[in-house]
Amino acid sequence: MTLHFTGPEFERRRQRLLAVMAEQRLDGLLMFQQESMYWLTGYDTFGFCFFQSLWLGADGRLALLTRSADLRQAQHTSLIEDIRVWTDRADATPQQQLRAMVAELGGTGGRIGVEYESYGLTAANGKRLDAAFDGVATLIDASQMVDRLRAVKSPAEILYARQAGKLALAAREAALATVAPGVDEGEVLAAMQGAIFRGGGDYPANEFIIGSGTDALLCRYKSGRRVLGEDDQLTLEWAGAFRHYHAAMMETVVIGPPRDRHLELFAAAKQALEACAHVMVPGRTAGEVFAAHAHVMDGHGLSSHRLAACGYSLGAKFTPSWMDPPMFYAGNPWVLEAGMVLFAHMILMDSDTGTAMCLGRTYLVGVNGNECLTPAPLDLIVN
Amino acid sequence: MTLHFTGPEFERRRQRLLAVMAEQRLDGLLMFQQESMYWLTGYDTFGFCFFQSLWLGADGRLALLTRSADLRQAQHTSLIEDIRVWTDRADATPQQQLRAMVAELGGTGGRIGVEYESYGLTAANGKRLDAAFDGVATLIDASQMVDRLRAVKSPAEILYARQAGKLALAAREAALATVAPGVDEGEVLAAMQGAIFRGGGDYPANEFIIGSGTDALLCRYKSGRRVLGEDDQLTLEWAGAFRHYHAAMMETVVIGPPRDRHLELFAAAKQALEACAHVMVPGRTAGEVFAAHAHVMDGHGLSSHRLAACGYSLGAKFTPSWMDPPMFYAGNPWVLEAGMVLFAHMILMDSDTGTAMCLGRTYLVGVNGNECLTPAPLDLIVN
Repeated sequence: MTLHFTGPEFERRRQRLLAVMAEQRLDGLLMFQQESMYWLTGYDTFGFCFFQSLWLGADGRLALLTRSADLRQAQHTSLIEDIRVWTDRADATPQQQLRAMVAELGGTGGRIGVEYESYGLTAANGKRLDAAFDGVATLIDASQMVDRLRAVKSPAEILYARQAGKLALAAREAALATVAPGVDEGEVLAAMQGAIFRGGGDYPANEFIIGSGTDALLCRYKSGRRVLGEDDQLTLEWAGAFRHYHAAMMETVVIGPPRDRHLELFAAAKQALEACAHVMVPGRTAGEVFAAHAHVMDGHGLSSHRLAACGYSLGAKFTPSWMDPPMFYAGNPWVLEAGMVLFAHMILMDSDTGTAMCLGRTYLVGVNGNECLTPAPLDLIVN
Repeated sequence: MTLHFTGPEFERRRQRLLAVMAEQRLDGLLMFQQESMYWLTGYDTFGFCFFQSLWLGADGRLALLTRSADLRQAQHTSLIEDIRVWTDRADATPQQQLRAMVAELGGTGGRIGVEYESYGLTAANGKRLDAAFDGVATLIDASQMVDRLRAVKSPAEILYARQAGKLALAAREAALATVAPGVDEGEVLAAMQGAIFRGGGDYPANEFIIGSGTDALLCRYKSGRRVLGEDDQLTLEWAGAFRHYHAAMMETVVIGPPRDRHLELFAAAKQALEACAHVMVPGRTAGEVFAAHAHVMDGHGLSSHRLAACGYSLGAKFTPSWMDPPMFYAGNPWVLEAGMVLFAHMILMDSDTGTAMCLGRTYLVGVNGNECLTPAPLDLIVN
């Protein structure tokens, strides 16, 4: 057992979850999100790429069904004691095995919550799950139940988020020390990711975004590196990750003299980020953060160059993405609370002139206002 | 458009897929696997973390429905011309939008194949998809249709697999130059991943596995690094990735004098890997490769220390895992063919004595026999 949190911390989480399950009159919960399993028990793996499920009964009992490759992984990383294994065969029926396990633990006959919204439960396996439990229990969609609890961080989690912020800043420093005309993007990526690994950090839940030239207008990773030119732009989006907790940042670095359009877009991005930061306080909604962003961008005449979302919650996430709910999009009613860690990204991509400008920081919501966990000057970076 | 393959190459793939669709009497295919989209069009993103789908009609027409953050990504990386966007809102119904798109392209009224087995289609979104198409078309599970085509590589793909093999060897060299008592595992990880990024390679589809001491017995990544001791063992599983094509390797490095148990387990692992390599030829099955592994291991009395699978196909994969079908497990009837790239891993974990020993290499199946794409001596590595 290599646990990154204390027993009492995990016990508080379990009690919070049991309380919400009781409110929803659930006899048990079948978890498929790796994030939920890590939060509740410490179980740390990418084994969710195959069918596996963690059961929590209303009686507080935990049991995991997984594959043989993850038996020791669960033993070494989690507090789960009841670990069962299903075996790969052409006619394997792990969903039936899961039903038998739940029945043995007294969980059938009632209402069972299921994390249907999960990379760990593909649509194909969801159908098999429904078939296996048909007539045996009523399955209820409980997808955001743990997400809601995870969104508000404990003091112990905030320590890791702060460490992630430091790693994000270290990666930024490594990048800025490397970027220059004639340098391959791969060198920049190696420097950034190396700083994080050397600092004890983790792989990010999604690839860092790195793109220059016209590909500076992209906000996803893609294969194929490029050498930076004398007169260039480089968009970077990255996260420090520590104990899987993320703190993200985003910048567009200008190489050579900035174009007027870079300066215009940067002014708007900075103003919009400051407007968002003003709204990321307890009692305001995720939708209001988006509205603050849209108001500034649209005031600058940039409505067709911005995205339809401008950030999201961060936490202990696994692949394929470090994005956690709530997301900042129009009308999202999710109310912000103290203890939330939020990433606001101002992304401006002007395809007409081929100009990119991005700016993003991570904030910890406090009782009053917020604190930037990735503090770096909000200045246009010119190399 | 930054395409890593030629137009005729993509056209051959499309024709192969259309032929299989015709055999299955499908009027169209809704793809949700990022691997399928990349293979068919070059579309390169981790945007599959949200709902998106690529349509291929029996008439050969392609159309993508995705989010605004992936609009330019699809334009810059793929040959898809018809790209449509759905917008995040509390009441967003992208599945309805997908049905409308398919109807407009003349795809409703008949039989539509769906990749239900996909990280890009969660069980929750699968239910919404079924509801949206209810009464409009018959949805058929076509999950492994593209997987089967992808499993056999073209000459252009094999060039990338070879490059991935070179990057895997470069990472191995970087690791062995770094490993020593007193060195932090994070330094080893930084050296390995750095060698791959500097060589123009990609993030792997899952984290490299790195564990020492008792955690050398794990075969998944986990958070938390450790400093190597004077008398230690370090299990590494990694892949070179180039244009997302993977070539994997696995080793357990012994630090200090090897225990007798290391030597015993290494002898079995080497013999088992050679036995598997003998079977990885056209006409044999994935199940036969597993049987060769199990026969050697069990002959050494190691049946309780091995896993229930010993390898899998490799290709252009996205997170959360680089494992592609077919997998080497008992009885898998999938017949091997020339052009397949296969990773065989011999994993021995003896919990009683706390000893780990792993050995893995990637092979290209030829018309006769196979060729190792990650050639390194099959000797026990002692630091």
